[in-house]
Amino acid sequence: MTKDLSHQAYPKNVTVVGAQFGGEVNFMTAAWSTYLSHDPLLFGVSIAPARYTHDLIEKSGEFNCNFLPFSERKQVHAIGRISGSEANKIDELGIETSKGDSIDVPFLAKAYAMIECKLQKTVEVGDHTFFVGEIKNAKNCADSFRENSTLNIKQENPTLYLGKNTYTTTSEEEHTI
Amino acid sequence: MTKDLSHQAYPKNVTVVGAQFGGEVNFMTAAWSTYLSHDPLLFGVSIAPARYTHDLIEKSGEFNCNFLPFSERKQVHAIGRISGSEANKIDELGIETSKGDSIDVPFLAKAYAMIECKLQKTVEVGDHTFFVGEIKNAKNCADSFRENSTLNIKQENPTLYLGKNTYTTTSEEEHTI
Repeated sequence: MTKDLSHQAYPKNVTVVGAQFGGEVNFMTAAWSTYLSHDPLLFGVSIAPARYTHDLIEKSGEFNCNFLPFSERKQVHAIGRISGSEANKIDELGIETSKGDSIDVPFLAKAYAMIECKLQKTVEVGDHTFFVGEIKNAKNCADSFRENSTLNIKQENPTLYLGKNTYTTTSEEEHTI
Repeated sequence: MTKDLSHQAYPKNVTVVGAQFGGEVNFMTAAWSTYLSHDPLLFGVSIAPARYTHDLIEKSGEFNCNFLPFSERKQVHAIGRISGSEANKIDELGIETSKGDSIDVPFLAKAYAMIECKLQKTVEVGDHTFFVGEIKNAKNCADSFRENSTLNIKQENPTLYLGKNTYTTTSEEEHTI
């Protein structure tokens, strides 16, 4: 048994969380997120209070989650390492954004998929806050998903986090049971 | 944009959730789970109230999460399809279990990793319940994890769910940034 119990459940599909309030926009990388409910369609993400994005979500009540291809893993990692309170991450990293659809938060132009959420519930969970959002809208690249709405892993490589700054992606193997 | 917005965030690392109350043991497959907090170390899983395991967790206040290799995907899928209220899933599927360590719930003998949780909080999230547990203990196969506690994907293939009864695993490619 490892002493560090916090990596058993990895890999996790990494998301870049975006938020905006009063004209301040920020993005951060989060590995701790999940769908929660079908109806309404809810998605939750766990964020430490010290993160700049945390305040923006609390104040604005909305956020998006961007999913970037494995080829963008260095950008994904960098977004997680620079604090939005110290630097304008968007300029510094040359992040391209597009205007949001159903919420007032820009999304990442290089995302193959993104979801837009309105905050429904805020839950204190230990040293983090779990933001539960209702998915109001989503966008994705036409080729990235199949007609049955699942990710086409033959076309698109998601960014999976293993912990300890290490990333992988999906294999080409898939089985429908 | 697909009309079905509920698959953008996949793949998800599938877990088999186990619970026990009054001698009744059950397991179910869940794709909606995540770590939540470092200190205390919290892990949450979203479960529909109709599931038999839901009641067992509510009554007992404990559960485990088992991570099975991709080679066991048919078993993982089957555990998600048979209801514990209608059949003794463990006998029917020939599931081998071992005695739990820190909680009174057996875990799956074929799991390459498992975590044992004490229920800390129950959160209503739409049509599901989000069970937040504190991780009290964990076990894993010696070869499955590296010394730095991350999954050794050269040795162990996790079971990743894409939605619509379709499973994949990790590639051999990995990058530490």
